[in-house]
Amino acid sequence: MEKEISQAVIRRMPRYYRYLGELLDDGVERISSNDLSARMRVTASQIRQDLNNFGGFGQQGYGYNVKYLYDEIGNILGINQRHNMIVVGAGNLGQALANYVNFEKRGFVIIGLFDVNPNLKKSSVRGIKVRMMNELESFVKEQRVDIAALTMPKEHAKRIANILVDLGIHAIWNFAHLDLELPEHVVVENVHLSESLMQLSYNIANQKKLTDKK
Amino acid sequence: MEKEISQAVIRRMPRYYRYLGELLDDGVERISSNDLSARMRVTASQIRQDLNNFGGFGQQGYGYNVKYLYDEIGNILGINQRHNMIVVGAGNLGQALANYVNFEKRGFVIIGLFDVNPNLKKSSVRGIKVRMMNELESFVKEQRVDIAALTMPKEHAKRIANILVDLGIHAIWNFAHLDLELPEHVVVENVHLSESLMQLSYNIANQKKLTDKK
Repeated sequence: MEKEISQAVIRRMPRYYRYLGELLDDGVERISSNDLSARMRVTASQIRQDLNNFGGFGQQGYGYNVKYLYDEIGNILGINQRHNMIVVGAGNLGQALANYVNFEKRGFVIIGLFDVNPNLKKSSVRGIKVRMMNELESFVKEQRVDIAALTMPKEHAKRIANILVDLGIHAIWNFAHLDLELPEHVVVENVHLSESLMQLSYNIANQKKLTDKK
Repeated sequence: MEKEISQAVIRRMPRYYRYLGELLDDGVERISSNDLSARMRVTASQIRQDLNNFGGFGQQGYGYNVKYLYDEIGNILGINQRHNMIVVGAGNLGQALANYVNFEKRGFVIIGLFDVNPNLKKSSVRGIKVRMMNELESFVKEQRVDIAALTMPKEHAKRIANILVDLGIHAIWNFAHLDLELPEHVVVENVHLSESLMQLSYNIANQKKLTDKK
């Protein structure tokens, strides 16, 4: 990919992937951008613009070949490659991640689960053993780890992220509520649940105002 | 608010709130948009534009009063009001949400936790009793419920969301991996973890390409 594509476009691609997967499951072979637009509730021109970032995929008047587009978007998103993931923080959230079988179906395989809590020492989640933090370094050196999910409290996230990066990990899926400052070659994706909740409460307040006015 | 403000702007507001909160904790009383810009790694003009949507708050040459701006953004986001929340699905993810004490600090109080699993019947999380689904209706009728978080598997989410809306709930925090189709007056905020993971894998693949070229 020569051109840099905006994160707003990238953020929308998994949703296309999901809808195309559902169409495939329904046995749909071909879909026009208008029909896809109606299903996804985005404009047809948005769909065309988004996909044009990657070269288009549609044939004028023929619409999109669902299977082809699904596979191509999967390739673009790097889904068809295996990604080994570790989860650092084996509390409820870390265990929830380890329990999602759908991640594995997409190639995101959790190979290690780490915590500081000695009570978790002999436990495991879906066959994945919980290891103590002092085993982290040797584990990462011995296995190929592509992604580290940080699900520990905010206070420790910064230090742990730096350790992981020093060990050679290039991608962090960060659930701790802070912005990590890491070298440029490290890719970070944040999931800030409390910010999502605040966005919801903004929309609640504003929906009320709209309804009051009616 | 007369004007409709874009969700992209709203999505950025909680981050301002977080940074201003940290400044307050550090005893900073006043900050220029340039200094805030350097801290937050967004352009000063972005900050001014974002805040201008709500009327500005800055005085030319004086910067922003941190406490005032923090409080105002809190008001805009509806944080200073109490929101009663129920969590439907008391698996790992639901329990993780119930365990976040920080939500409560912001006024988001989890008052009920529901599940279909009879093994959870007599359990509780942080003092919040897990109730069975057949208690949902009477509970929602007796309590004021502002937000329902859906943390159950995708297959049930649609049906449960409709039930909740019929019971009068106007806001859904949806963790199930589908788009809910609900009446217009209902506010939905989605957290699609697998889409976040796909965005990460896209960025991993593209970071590799960038690095290879160097």
